[in-house]
Amino acid sequence: MLTHKRVDTNSLFLTEHLNNLGVEVVAKHVVGDDRNRIAGEILRALVTSQFVFISGGLGPTEDDLTRDAVAMALGREQKLDPAISDAIEQRFRQMNRVMPEINRRQGMVIEGAEVLSNDRGTAPGQWIDTGSAVVAILPGPPHELKSMFTRECLPRLVKLVPYSVIRTLELRISGMSESDLDQRIAPVYTRYENPVTTILAHNADMQVHLRVRCDTEAEAIALLADVGGQIEALVGDRIYSRNGDPLEAVIGQKLKATNSSLVVAESATGGGLGERISSVPGASAWFWGGFLTYNHRMKTEFLGVPEATLRQFGAVSKETAEAMANGARERTGATWAVSVTGNAGPTTDGEEAPVGTIIVGVSGPTGTTTLERRWPSGDRVRVRAFAAQMALDALHRELCK
Amino acid sequence: MLTHKRVDTNSLFLTEHLNNLGVEVVAKHVVGDDRNRIAGEILRALVTSQFVFISGGLGPTEDDLTRDAVAMALGREQKLDPAISDAIEQRFRQMNRVMPEINRRQGMVIEGAEVLSNDRGTAPGQWIDTGSAVVAILPGPPHELKSMFTRECLPRLVKLVPYSVIRTLELRISGMSESDLDQRIAPVYTRYENPVTTILAHNADMQVHLRVRCDTEAEAIALLADVGGQIEALVGDRIYSRNGDPLEAVIGQKLKATNSSLVVAESATGGGLGERISSVPGASAWFWGGFLTYNHRMKTEFLGVPEATLRQFGAVSKETAEAMANGARERTGATWAVSVTGNAGPTTDGEEAPVGTIIVGVSGPTGTTTLERRWPSGDRVRVRAFAAQMALDALHRELCK
Repeated sequence: MLTHKRVDTNSLFLTEHLNNLGVEVVAKHVVGDDRNRIAGEILRALVTSQFVFISGGLGPTEDDLTRDAVAMALGREQKLDPAISDAIEQRFRQMNRVMPEINRRQGMVIEGAEVLSNDRGTAPGQWIDTGSAVVAILPGPPHELKSMFTRECLPRLVKLVPYSVIRTLELRISGMSESDLDQRIAPVYTRYENPVTTILAHNADMQVHLRVRCDTEAEAIALLADVGGQIEALVGDRIYSRNGDPLEAVIGQKLKATNSSLVVAESATGGGLGERISSVPGASAWFWGGFLTYNHRMKTEFLGVPEATLRQFGAVSKETAEAMANGARERTGATWAVSVTGNAGPTTDGEEAPVGTIIVGVSGPTGTTTLERRWPSGDRVRVRAFAAQMALDALHRELCK
Repeated sequence: MLTHKRVDTNSLFLTEHLNNLGVEVVAKHVVGDDRNRIAGEILRALVTSQFVFISGGLGPTEDDLTRDAVAMALGREQKLDPAISDAIEQRFRQMNRVMPEINRRQGMVIEGAEVLSNDRGTAPGQWIDTGSAVVAILPGPPHELKSMFTRECLPRLVKLVPYSVIRTLELRISGMSESDLDQRIAPVYTRYENPVTTILAHNADMQVHLRVRCDTEAEAIALLADVGGQIEALVGDRIYSRNGDPLEAVIGQKLKATNSSLVVAESATGGGLGERISSVPGASAWFWGGFLTYNHRMKTEFLGVPEATLRQFGAVSKETAEAMANGARERTGATWAVSVTGNAGPTTDGEEAPVGTIIVGVSGPTGTTTLERRWPSGDRVRVRAFAAQMALDALHRELCK
């Protein structure tokens, strides 16, 4: 992770789950693909910590040194477990592929280690309890690590960690900035060390996490209800979920419950809005699809946006957004249609609206609304992500009416 | 970053640029929102390192403690710089918003620090040269950090770091697995310590980075050409770019050069394919848009897929993928159309194809081809990302014919 461009989601996932068990994460260390340096960090970590989790470096490629480094740090031998390499070979066969010879060494196991099964990939993990501490080796790919940790590590951890009750509340919020949210709720959460409050912001989507830790369940529930209730009262209907569900899932539930259907008409987002809506498993129950109309002709031909509207107001206008949403709804017969048009940048050509301008339209049984906003410009990826969030937020508000 | 779910892209960005200057990154440390602990890590880092980069914790919210921790570690005072808080207020005004009062403290500056301007957000950075080392404080949001580092830190670093020539080659590869790629090229790259070779894999998209470091430019260019040439010969036409351009940009360049146009017809990806194609700035020059047909009726009505095809072969079939691509091409008149259908899971209902099955169709001037693959199942997000990559790869191969 020191030289790679790979994104580190693993340590965040591990931290959250360890915290939930009451295990404090005191440090994270990232070291290069150097056997001695990795072994050194492990030895240092074992001085201060009861658990050392290591992720990555179990793959078959030449720079995967984790197993060797752990064996070196603990002064233990490794042996090939033929059952593991056979299972890896089997996995390749299921995908109609031949196992490359280098994958065989993924079957090496450190003396005394319990093997952690990998149901998402080829490399198994290892759990080495030295008596005074545990060293766990997990695979690097996040989907493999998450599954392995949940199935194999959590049950082992629960047996080793002293009991205390942890309860969490996750409020999800849309339609306000991080600064505004914090200014509103800081007077409450700064008065409490327990629960611990964390505010997360990602592309205009906000989360407030409260985590209480108490001796009894009754205490934990009461404290969480008290502090959580105060925060909920301050944020009001900007809260769209209380159970971790993302906005697209909440929208899906509302549409499904009312037997309604949804289509999209996207310009600036180019598919990003449909991608989010359809990311919810089972989305075909409410999402029919829609239209990516990235130029004028697609807008007129497939959504019936009048050429005069495009000429007079431009593609980035409330009039066009409204015509796009209406057209998508009428031509498909869906209950709801959401449109997005805008200028994501990085540059603007001629008469278009300023970079960062995003306009969404929501067409539904009771009419059509539009909403315009200018996001901070300069980052095309972010403006497009903001645009999809803004469209979902606008739709959600209409669905709540 | 210890308790948050935020993804750490900053340290990877910094590492890459520091490496390119010949600065080795010896460690990364992540510590919680605790003033003393942060200050402690800074002091420890200053013992071994000439540069200490700190990112995050400059925002206005209550847990942003970085400035205080650095001041504490260096034993320096902080003062409010009214010019900075005025500039922040101005920025809010430009977005038609009132600056929340808590943003004012983003104008606090550590004694002796040079202020690093932030053109993407409110919090300025700071550069403190103690004589023996440099401590730089950068904002947390990646788009802010990247801009600030490039504009403000790189020019300062170049003056402080001894000269040596670094040259890099970035090969991008699609259509083979990480294992297969490594097995093919390891015999070459393992023979060299210089260049350093790194293989990155992300959703079936592969990158091979070679970085040479030499005393003279001529040496660097010659060495890179030698080793890079050997690797290119082994990977062949699976290489789609040699300059860092992603697959969607390479496709865009090919379409633009031939004055061709592209539409999509997406089922399983639900917009993710269009999102990638349109992520390239200026994509409207070749990308017209397309159709998200997430149910049978959308496929028959807007793409003209025969009901008999859906009934006989199912929505996840080569026949449907072919009809989708042909329909999108014919109805829009675009030069090329790409379709994706499949079952991304997590579950399958009734007669659909197994989870992980993805079929893409490419329709162009010389006919239509389809391609079927079964990806490892179990992760809807990943299967959908694989599907978009597979569609782009199939299109790219046709464009290269």
